[in-house]
Amino acid sequence: MSDSKAMKKLEELGRGMVKQIDAGEGPTFETTLRTKSNTIYDEGYGCLRTGEKKETRKYLSVAQARTFMQTVAIAAKTKQFLAQDLHTSIRGLFYQLKFSLGENLDEDLFTEQSESNGLIEDLEVALKIKREDLHLTTDRKGFLAGNMKIRDKFGGEETIIDLAKQGRSGWSIPSDVDNGMEIESLEADYVLVVEKDALWQRLNEDKFWKEENCLLVTPKGQSTRGTRRLLRKLADKKLPVYCLMDCDAWGWYIYWTIKTGSMNLAYLGRDFAVPESRFIGVTMSDITEFSFLDKLTIKAKDVDIKRAEEMMSYPWINRHKDWVRELKLVLKTKKKIEQDALQGQRLTFVGEYIKQKIENKEWLS
Amino acid sequence: MSDSKAMKKLEELGRGMVKQIDAGEGPTFETTLRTKSNTIYDEGYGCLRTGEKKETRKYLSVAQARTFMQTVAIAAKTKQFLAQDLHTSIRGLFYQLKFSLGENLDEDLFTEQSESNGLIEDLEVALKIKREDLHLTTDRKGFLAGNMKIRDKFGGEETIIDLAKQGRSGWSIPSDVDNGMEIESLEADYVLVVEKDALWQRLNEDKFWKEENCLLVTPKGQSTRGTRRLLRKLADKKLPVYCLMDCDAWGWYIYWTIKTGSMNLAYLGRDFAVPESRFIGVTMSDITEFSFLDKLTIKAKDVDIKRAEEMMSYPWINRHKDWVRELKLVLKTKKKIEQDALQGQRLTFVGEYIKQKIENKEWLS
Repeated sequence: MSDSKAMKKLEELGRGMVKQIDAGEGPTFETTLRTKSNTIYDEGYGCLRTGEKKETRKYLSVAQARTFMQTVAIAAKTKQFLAQDLHTSIRGLFYQLKFSLGENLDEDLFTEQSESNGLIEDLEVALKIKREDLHLTTDRKGFLAGNMKIRDKFGGEETIIDLAKQGRSGWSIPSDVDNGMEIESLEADYVLVVEKDALWQRLNEDKFWKEENCLLVTPKGQSTRGTRRLLRKLADKKLPVYCLMDCDAWGWYIYWTIKTGSMNLAYLGRDFAVPESRFIGVTMSDITEFSFLDKLTIKAKDVDIKRAEEMMSYPWINRHKDWVRELKLVLKTKKKIEQDALQGQRLTFVGEYIKQKIENKEWLS
Repeated sequence: MSDSKAMKKLEELGRGMVKQIDAGEGPTFETTLRTKSNTIYDEGYGCLRTGEKKETRKYLSVAQARTFMQTVAIAAKTKQFLAQDLHTSIRGLFYQLKFSLGENLDEDLFTEQSESNGLIEDLEVALKIKREDLHLTTDRKGFLAGNMKIRDKFGGEETIIDLAKQGRSGWSIPSDVDNGMEIESLEADYVLVVEKDALWQRLNEDKFWKEENCLLVTPKGQSTRGTRRLLRKLADKKLPVYCLMDCDAWGWYIYWTIKTGSMNLAYLGRDFAVPESRFIGVTMSDITEFSFLDKLTIKAKDVDIKRAEEMMSYPWINRHKDWVRELKLVLKTKKKIEQDALQGQRLTFVGEYIKQKIENKEWLS
C-alpha cells in the first residue's frame, strides 16, 4: 500500500472521531474481534481468517478509555513516521510513545512491548492495513537464493539485487517485501522451502537451485511475516511451492502456518497464506521408500504426540486423508524424523530426495 | 586453514594412534582441559583462553572407551567431508555418525546433538583447529553493510559481493568467514556494532554507514562464531571497533564476549576475541548528558543486578574503573536502559548519539 493511501486511512480514522466529538458524542473505535470464536476457515480460499464480528470501543468508558487513548496515540505516531518517511520497530514505537505520552499524561501508558503489540493488531484489522504499511518493521529471519532479481528502493536509493549472486550467504528476506520492493525479474520453475538454515546451506553448496532452476528458501524455523508475504507473492506468480520440513510438531506447525496461517495470526488472512503449498517431506512413510531412514528416526516427544492429535481435530486438516494417515503413523510408532536425517547416508542425498518427490508428485496436500 | 593442512592434522592424529597400536600400546588422545579451573585471562593479549593443563584419554579404559571411539569417529567423518569437499552442520554430522556407527556397532552412540558438540570442541582444542576448517557449519545470524567487497569462493563458484549494494537486507555474515572467503576491498574508517537488528535497520535506512564511512554490523543479539571471527579480521585491518549495546545483563554479556570471549567459549581464544573493542553505550551515565533518556529507563531485573555484581568480581573487568563506576550506578539506581530508547525523542537521534560518542571519545574501555 502506498504511503499516501495509508496516510489517508489514518486521517479518516481521526476525522471520524473528530466528527463524533463535534456532534457531542464520545468518540468510538470499531475493530474486528480477533478472538478464537471469530476465527473461521475460509473454505473458498483455503486459509484461516477473522470473521465478521465487530467490536466498538468507547472513549467514554472507564474500562476502555486507556486502551482507546493508546490506540489513538499509536495511530498518531505512525502517521508521523509516514510523514517523516522513516521506519522503526515496535520497540522504537514503544519508546516514542513512552517519551511523548509519559510527559503529557504524567503516567506510563506503555510499560510493556506486548501491550502495544495487541493494539497494533487492532489497528491493522480495523484499517485493513498491514503494520509494514505503517512503517513498522518486524523481525526478519529467512533467506533466498535463485534466479530472481529484486528492485529495492530504500533510504532514498535504488538497488537491483541479483539473488543468484549472493554466494554462501544468500539474500536475507527483509521485514517488508511490498513497499519500495519489486520483483525485477524471475526465472524459476518452482519454490522450495526448507525448514532449517543448515539444510538450506547444504543445498546452496550443491547449487541445487541452479541445477533445478528453483528458488531456494528457508524461513529458518517459523516463518516471519516477510517470508510469508514473499511466498504469497511468488505463488501469485504461479510458481508451485514445495515445503520440506521436519516430521514433528514444530515442522508441521511451520508448514501449516505457511499454508493456512495459524489460529493466533488468523487476522493476517489471505495476504499471508499460501494454500497452494505442498508438503513433500519428511514423512514417516518415507521409511518404506528410503530404508536407510529407518534407523535414523528418533523417539517422538509428548509435544509431538499432542500436536498430532490436535491436528487431527482441525477440520481444515483432517479433511486431507493423506495427512490423517501420516499423523496416525506417528501416533502408532511414536517416532519422528528430522529433515537432517536425509544426509545420514550421503550428504548430497537431500537434493536427490527432493527431485524424486517432486517428479513423482509424492506430497501431502 | 587450508583443507590439505586440516587433512594433514587429522591424518597425524590417526597415524599417532596406529603407531601406539603397532607398539602394542592402547591408543590415547591428548586434549587440553576446557574446565573453569583451566580458563585463564591472557594478560598480554586481553582475552580469555584455556590454559596448559592437558588430559589424556585412553581407549583401554572402561570409563573412556566410549568417548574415545566417538572422538575418533568424528575425526574420521570430518576427514571424509574434507575429501568430498562438502560441508554440513553438527546435526548433519550426528546423522552421518548415527547411520554408520549404528550399523557397525549395533548401538546408538550418538543419541543427542549436545553429546557430539562437546567432542568437536575436544577435537578443535587438541588439533588447534577450528570446526569450520573441518567443514562443519555453525549457526549464522549477523548482518553487515558498508563499503566493503567480499570475494566468496563457494560451491565451485566465485562471486564478488558488494556490501554497499545490499539494500534494506544487508549482507548476512556466514558461518565461515575464512575458508574460501577474502576481503576483496575495504574502504571504511571504523566498525560500528549495534546489538539489535532493529536498530541496524534504523541506521541502514539513514545510510549511516555511508555518511560516516563505517561498516555497520549487528550480531543480532549474542555473536555467532562467524561474526566474532569477522570482527577479529576487521580489527586486524586496524579498524577501530565501537559497540553500542543495551545497558543490561544481556548487552554487557554480548559486549564482553566480543571483547574477551566468554568463560565457556574460552577455548576459542585469540582468533575470536577483539580486545580493542570499545563500549560507546548505552550507559546509565548517558542520562546526565541526554536528559530525555531519564524517563526512558526501565526497572532493572534480578538478572541485571546479579550480572552487574558478577562482572565486578571478574579481575579482567574490575580493573577498568569506568566499568566499575557504571556498574555501581546500575546497582544504586536499580535501573537499566535499552539502546532502542535513543529513538524516543527523534527516530534519527541514534546516529547523532553515535557520532558524538565517537568524536568525544566517550567510551568505556
